Amino acid sequence: MQTLRQFQEIFHSYLQENQFRNQPRELYEPVNYILSIGGKRLRPVLVLMSQALFDEKIEKSLPAAFAVEVFHNFTLLHDDIMDEAPLRRGKPTVHIKYDVNTGILSGDVMMIAAYDFLAKIADESKIPALYKTFNKVAIEVCEGQQYDMNFETRDDVTIPEYLRMIELKTSVLLAGAMQMGAIIGNASAADAEHIYQFGRNVGLAFQIQDDILDSFGDPKKFGKKVGGDIAQNKKTILYLTALKQSKGAQKKELLGLYSNDNIEEKMKIKRVKEIFRDLKVVETAQKYQSDFIDKAYQQLEKVDASKEKKEALRSWAEQLVVREV
Amino acid sequence: MQTLRQFQEIFHSYLQENQFRNQPRELYEPVNYILSIGGKRLRPVLVLMSQALFDEKIEKSLPAAFAVEVFHNFTLLHDDIMDEAPLRRGKPTVHIKYDVNTGILSGDVMMIAAYDFLAKIADESKIPALYKTFNKVAIEVCEGQQYDMNFETRDDVTIPEYLRMIELKTSVLLAGAMQMGAIIGNASAADAEHIYQFGRNVGLAFQIQDDILDSFGDPKKFGKKVGGDIAQNKKTILYLTALKQSKGAQKKELLGLYSNDNIEEKMKIKRVKEIFRDLKVVETAQKYQSDFIDKAYQQLEKVDASKEKKEALRSWAEQLVVREV
Repeated sequence: MQTLRQFQEIFHSYLQENQFRNQPRELYEPVNYILSIGGKRLRPVLVLMSQALFDEKIEKSLPAAFAVEVFHNFTLLHDDIMDEAPLRRGKPTVHIKYDVNTGILSGDVMMIAAYDFLAKIADESKIPALYKTFNKVAIEVCEGQQYDMNFETRDDVTIPEYLRMIELKTSVLLAGAMQMGAIIGNASAADAEHIYQFGRNVGLAFQIQDDILDSFGDPKKFGKKVGGDIAQNKKTILYLTALKQSKGAQKKELLGLYSNDNIEEKMKIKRVKEIFRDLKVVETAQKYQSDFIDKAYQQLEKVDASKEKKEALRSWAEQLVVREV
Repeated sequence: MQTLRQFQEIFHSYLQENQFRNQPRELYEPVNYILSIGGKRLRPVLVLMSQALFDEKIEKSLPAAFAVEVFHNFTLLHDDIMDEAPLRRGKPTVHIKYDVNTGILSGDVMMIAAYDFLAKIADESKIPALYKTFNKVAIEVCEGQQYDMNFETRDDVTIPEYLRMIELKTSVLLAGAMQMGAIIGNASAADAEHIYQFGRNVGLAFQIQDDILDSFGDPKKFGKKVGGDIAQNKKTILYLTALKQSKGAQKKELLGLYSNDNIEEKMKIKRVKEIFRDLKVVETAQKYQSDFIDKAYQQLEKVDASKEKKEALRSWAEQLVVREV
């Protein structure tokens, strides 16, 4: 099987070749812009990797990989408008570089372009199944974003609710990307489902890792500002666990820190992290994480593919999730 | 063939049965809201009517009809945000009744739901062709909206450019709706194309009629405020024709009326309409209109369907387009 780096390079070439050159320029320039500012191309690589488990001619799934990446970037574009985010991977967001209306409309055309690319899959008989997966996942991503927005103003969010939210907002797209790769690779229905569940569980573990790194990551290795979630009062798994495990004065202090806008940010981050440490919330979160990883590997075991290829996928998942704290 | 009223009633029942009951409520309530505030349901009726030309079991195309209506309402929802429109068919727009973020996200999920409904077509072998039509049309609608926005700040818009813009923004969806009905009705590829061209030309004539009515319609029959386009300096076919046909002082006056924000609205509408009358721009616009109608009928002639059914479609098109001025 190709290496991770090779998958990335193959996808990158396809992305370059498929820049949008259509008119009007005002509609498509922001699309090329957001697609150019990069990232690890995790989701399209998952489509290719998953296909390669069953069939190594991975050029077959490049249109689907591109569709998934365009869809993902559409969600980032519209989420950035909703969150009023000024930067995305260190660059101005589309609604800042252009304007909000451009962001809305260019996002809309990206979503449709994603569907359009999915239809370019050479084997037409696969199209209904691919659209079925894509539709389900795309709807769930919107639902996850709505739950995330709802949680901002709720103070009774439970851990199961939180896990469901990240499942919808993040994991199902990873899972769907892998399922689409499996479909194109002619996997059996059972294997396509195992691969979906593998991706879903890895995605959950990945998001929990993201929560942990946001508060406790090494500033040199972590791309974003450490403590950002705390500064924004985000109800991450760390916060929800702390809230559940704390009592009395400590609980009152934590609630106070998350509702007081006047406290100095550095001090707030420091104090919340002390409470997190005191309650060993990272250890609790890591327990969830390892449960998800175990479930993911159990699903992968069941897949009818070579041991060597499954090992490659397993080692990729480990790299992705078990990053240093 | 069923009457127009019957098609509307069949669609209305399906719409009622298919209200969105999914969670989270905050995401789907605005979707049901915008779908409930109605309109003539022109586009879904076109899907059904077009199918009925070839196959009268029109329940087959109800999911596609619904998909087209949901897509159309998604475009209205996002366009209303972009235009900062407070009202839609006399009711508060979604971003006013809820908020802008809700409008963006509920619109997004509507677009995906449209694709999802299209996949409910019973005959799976039709799905690739239906998605192909839908993708093309949906992309063109976004392009049309971008051209419309571009035209606001341009003062050199030509009539051919204007016609291309309304073709993209309005006509192709009518055309695509009809093509989808034809595909589901098992029409030949040639007939599906004739029906597409019929819909496209009727759509162009329909939009020109809309421009004429906006300035010269009977206030009692016309739903919106007469003169609204003039008040907003919209570059309609009437304005562009007037600009082309005027000279000297009159041209200068027209340009002045369209660029002076201080002039009292009633006076401005009155004076612009006098110039329009003087230059006989309605007659010129009607010439374009009747050319499009002729082309539409030529396409309909070629369709392999009963004379009686084609006559029903023709009389519908006449009702739609040739409304009293």
